[in-house]
Amino acid sequence: MPFRSAPVKLIENWFSERYSDNLQLSFRVKDQLLSVRTDFQRIDLFETYDFGKLLTIDGTVQLTEYDEHIYHEMITMMPFYAFGIKPESALVIGGGDGGTASGLLSLGFRNVTNVEIDSQVVEVSKKFFPDLSSAFKDSRCNLIIDDGIKYVRNISNKFDFVLVDSTDPEGPAEGLFSEEFYKSIHGALKPGGVAVTQSGSPLYQPKAIKLANSGMKKAFRNVYTYCCFIPTYPSGFWSFTMGSDSDLRFQSNERSGKYFNSEILHGALNLPQFVRDMIK
Amino acid sequence: MPFRSAPVKLIENWFSERYSDNLQLSFRVKDQLLSVRTDFQRIDLFETYDFGKLLTIDGTVQLTEYDEHIYHEMITMMPFYAFGIKPESALVIGGGDGGTASGLLSLGFRNVTNVEIDSQVVEVSKKFFPDLSSAFKDSRCNLIIDDGIKYVRNISNKFDFVLVDSTDPEGPAEGLFSEEFYKSIHGALKPGGVAVTQSGSPLYQPKAIKLANSGMKKAFRNVYTYCCFIPTYPSGFWSFTMGSDSDLRFQSNERSGKYFNSEILHGALNLPQFVRDMIK
Repeated sequence: MPFRSAPVKLIENWFSERYSDNLQLSFRVKDQLLSVRTDFQRIDLFETYDFGKLLTIDGTVQLTEYDEHIYHEMITMMPFYAFGIKPESALVIGGGDGGTASGLLSLGFRNVTNVEIDSQVVEVSKKFFPDLSSAFKDSRCNLIIDDGIKYVRNISNKFDFVLVDSTDPEGPAEGLFSEEFYKSIHGALKPGGVAVTQSGSPLYQPKAIKLANSGMKKAFRNVYTYCCFIPTYPSGFWSFTMGSDSDLRFQSNERSGKYFNSEILHGALNLPQFVRDMIK
Repeated sequence: MPFRSAPVKLIENWFSERYSDNLQLSFRVKDQLLSVRTDFQRIDLFETYDFGKLLTIDGTVQLTEYDEHIYHEMITMMPFYAFGIKPESALVIGGGDGGTASGLLSLGFRNVTNVEIDSQVVEVSKKFFPDLSSAFKDSRCNLIIDDGIKYVRNISNKFDFVLVDSTDPEGPAEGLFSEEFYKSIHGALKPGGVAVTQSGSPLYQPKAIKLANSGMKKAFRNVYTYCCFIPTYPSGFWSFTMGSDSDLRFQSNERSGKYFNSEILHGALNLPQFVRDMIK
């Protein structure tokens, strides 16, 4: 975590995310719109040339206007259509930008509870990403500012779908990749409900995908990792891991997004050999 | 082509590839091993910290030791197993590093002809990438230094498999994405033979994937685009396009590589909606 809490410095109007000591991706920036230290993390916001607005937390890209749809479609639509989840009640842990909650509402969920630890992420998103954060103005969405790990411990048998939209398993988010946490989620789900978590870049963050798999397998009968391309995330190659006591039952009338479609519904579950080896 | 023929400059031991005026990926470099201007292009070779040796042509990453296997497995194994190609005679156009020809030999091809325009690419690979270029020491491989476009025009009914392992469709490689070229390849193939070309990043190089699809559709009855993750190529998301008058007939006894396996054989053909829209 070389950047945690350190101010993000622009060098000649370039913002760089260090993926390691030896690799970085750099975006040319028109303007820095915000830089704030909250109780939990540092939030920066840039207006870029090629990617629209770019939000970073502790110096790592969280989303850009150009490609946020890939992440948000894949964390919501993929489990929804793969398991045929009832669009009734969902819980989002993290996801303070609102993109995941908004995606759930557009899939028809009747009640979405969103537990985010840092109110300032919500405020920044409301101000700068009004479409993404539209769920927070919708009466079907209940926003709670709290620690998701504590929150989920006290809930039982309530949700059809729990989504963990977290940062990487370092520092405060480490508990979001623990076996105990996945067992709490299992308890918060109705029988046969579905959980999903982002599980990082298999190439550059093997810890996340390994922890998500080993932990979820202790809590759920069926666990599946799936992948997609996200060009502004480390390596461009991203994974999610979902678990349920139900079996996959692909819905045939799935809606397409800009990235997700009926081909991806099946294809994203087909993993490269090195990923298969990491999670077996 | 902002970098064509320009010397590659390191800034404080970082090599950067510019993907646009506003985006670049940078690798920390231990040493620059080579910088040479040939009759066709500029070749640079770096020893990096995280990716082993890194070869660039005109300032764009061609291969690194760390991830070249993904590109080479996907250009050879994917069409081979998807169409059940006979491992007899293959033609590689470009691919002067030898990785594609070596991959074909390991699949059991009896005769591989490799036509590369720039002898210096071959010499650099022989010296610095002895495993990758091992085909060039194998009696089953016939290396010809010539212009692949001219070469293929004069061949008919000779190959089971033609692979176009080219740079991007700018400057000298532009003809490698033309309808006329794909028709020449069709003529060089035995009836029902298979052609494949790398077709760039769907995100950052839409021209390549569009030209490959529209051109191949004029020459072949069946055309399929497939994708994979390559972290050191622009956006990390790469496409290949293959054509044949034969139908797909997936082989069930396919071998796994480090990336390719039986899941990828099927999954790589499942395309995101925005890619599907680009090539329809």
